[in-house]
Amino acid sequence: MSFQRLVRFVPKGDDSQVLLGEPVDSTLDIGVAVRKGEDVEVKVFSGASVLAPGSPTGQVAVIGRILSPLTQQEVGTIRCIGLNYKKHAEEAKMTIPDIPTLFLKPATSLGDPWPAPTVIPKHTLATDTADYESELAIVLGRETKNVSVEDALDYVLGYTAANDISSRAAQFAQTQWCYSKGFDGACPLGPTLVSSKVITDAGNLQLRGIKNGKVLQDSPLTDLIFSVAEVVSFCSQGTTLPAGTVIITGTPAGVGMAKNPKELLHEGDEFVVEILPHIGSLYNVMENEK
Amino acid sequence: MSFQRLVRFVPKGDDSQVLLGEPVDSTLDIGVAVRKGEDVEVKVFSGASVLAPGSPTGQVAVIGRILSPLTQQEVGTIRCIGLNYKKHAEEAKMTIPDIPTLFLKPATSLGDPWPAPTVIPKHTLATDTADYESELAIVLGRETKNVSVEDALDYVLGYTAANDISSRAAQFAQTQWCYSKGFDGACPLGPTLVSSKVITDAGNLQLRGIKNGKVLQDSPLTDLIFSVAEVVSFCSQGTTLPAGTVIITGTPAGVGMAKNPKELLHEGDEFVVEILPHIGSLYNVMENEK
Repeated sequence: MSFQRLVRFVPKGDDSQVLLGEPVDSTLDIGVAVRKGEDVEVKVFSGASVLAPGSPTGQVAVIGRILSPLTQQEVGTIRCIGLNYKKHAEEAKMTIPDIPTLFLKPATSLGDPWPAPTVIPKHTLATDTADYESELAIVLGRETKNVSVEDALDYVLGYTAANDISSRAAQFAQTQWCYSKGFDGACPLGPTLVSSKVITDAGNLQLRGIKNGKVLQDSPLTDLIFSVAEVVSFCSQGTTLPAGTVIITGTPAGVGMAKNPKELLHEGDEFVVEILPHIGSLYNVMENEK
Repeated sequence: MSFQRLVRFVPKGDDSQVLLGEPVDSTLDIGVAVRKGEDVEVKVFSGASVLAPGSPTGQVAVIGRILSPLTQQEVGTIRCIGLNYKKHAEEAKMTIPDIPTLFLKPATSLGDPWPAPTVIPKHTLATDTADYESELAIVLGRETKNVSVEDALDYVLGYTAANDISSRAAQFAQTQWCYSKGFDGACPLGPTLVSSKVITDAGNLQLRGIKNGKVLQDSPLTDLIFSVAEVVSFCSQGTTLPAGTVIITGTPAGVGMAKNPKELLHEGDEFVVEILPHIGSLYNVMENEK
């Protein structure tokens, strides 16, 4: 299993297939290129899953639609770390935690990149408080449990980008966050899964959240309170993390609610989670639930 | 798909099989009988899953080990309602909520009844705060989303018993409950799945939590703050609940921590969640993680 950067996609002109492969241009932000309507070529792999990608078949295909790097079945329950950037904890008026704050999203919250919409559910529309949270997502390649901080990175297959879409009114109507962050499509993921052999230190990444072209979140990953290794180790204590487990690592300062409330999300808004270098831009356009 | 009360089990003397069926004695508490070592006969069904049980084959088998009524794959992410009994909210010194409090457990937290152990993980042993929460579990038979309170019961396949095993120190070390209640085996389920055609009103059930023979929790289900229909409807807002979804409905007063801390769980303790009539007794014996 050797790859640098995988994309799962529906090829152009053939909606019946799902393919997996490596973009031919290894430095292209394929999220940007596909959003612009450019033809992005991919070296197709023999496997169907990032957990068993196989090897290049020699075939080259053009992306029609980018899909989440993993399926609902592969991700299972999504692990989510809250309050993992000092400046975000401050803007949310919450104490900087001693241990990671963990909540969960169901597999049904997994979402694909644009043109798949991010649907704002009726219960959120009623309060007009849909919000974004740009995040780095960790993907585990092998099952682990009770792993030490020292060994945790051995289980990381790679990284991608995520948006922890949240309904703020529902979030603050109760102590627990699972309801307000668990609706269908509330965890879009993509556009590429980049190997931990390429991203050997997540601290070298820069994360930005961009709404309708305006940069609202912008942080180096060195600002994480709990590192990738610490987060993986923590989540695994007493708990089996299957291969395919996705852990989203928290969001930096600049979420919509902190701007009270002018940057919250509405139908037609485009939101981009950009993680560079390597991962690229996760685009979604908001759509109201009908 | 017609049944009254299903048990999934490994038959006596044949560890290679998993069978599904209806106990021959329709009133027997099979949890008690199996724990005593009695032979419990089951009319075997043709299906392998409570979601597709098929019909009686004519074969009768004796239970070796009772299993959780559903598999990890079938339950997916487990939905959990907190603070759903007025007296428990009071003992936990929490405000009675206006809306259901929702947290989640991963599929890996699913546990089988005795003789499968309930393992107290190392992180809980370190603080000596493993605790029980006896609960009624709802199982959905069909996928639903945005279902009304009026229609919600149409999607309920049946009911079983659950224990929401919790690590209290970890729970109170952060705002979110998913870490402290999500470890492997922290949601044993069983012993039978009773059809919603038999339990037409969960209010007719009596729930007891019994530790080493001592009744510590004892409440009629009429004391639920949010009814079964209200809980199912709430969880489905904006969120697809697949067939097989398990929703545990909260625990009544009498948990160990409220007794500060003499009733917390330790290796060798036997805990029983008893729901009568129909469902029976879910036995587990605690074991320390090695």
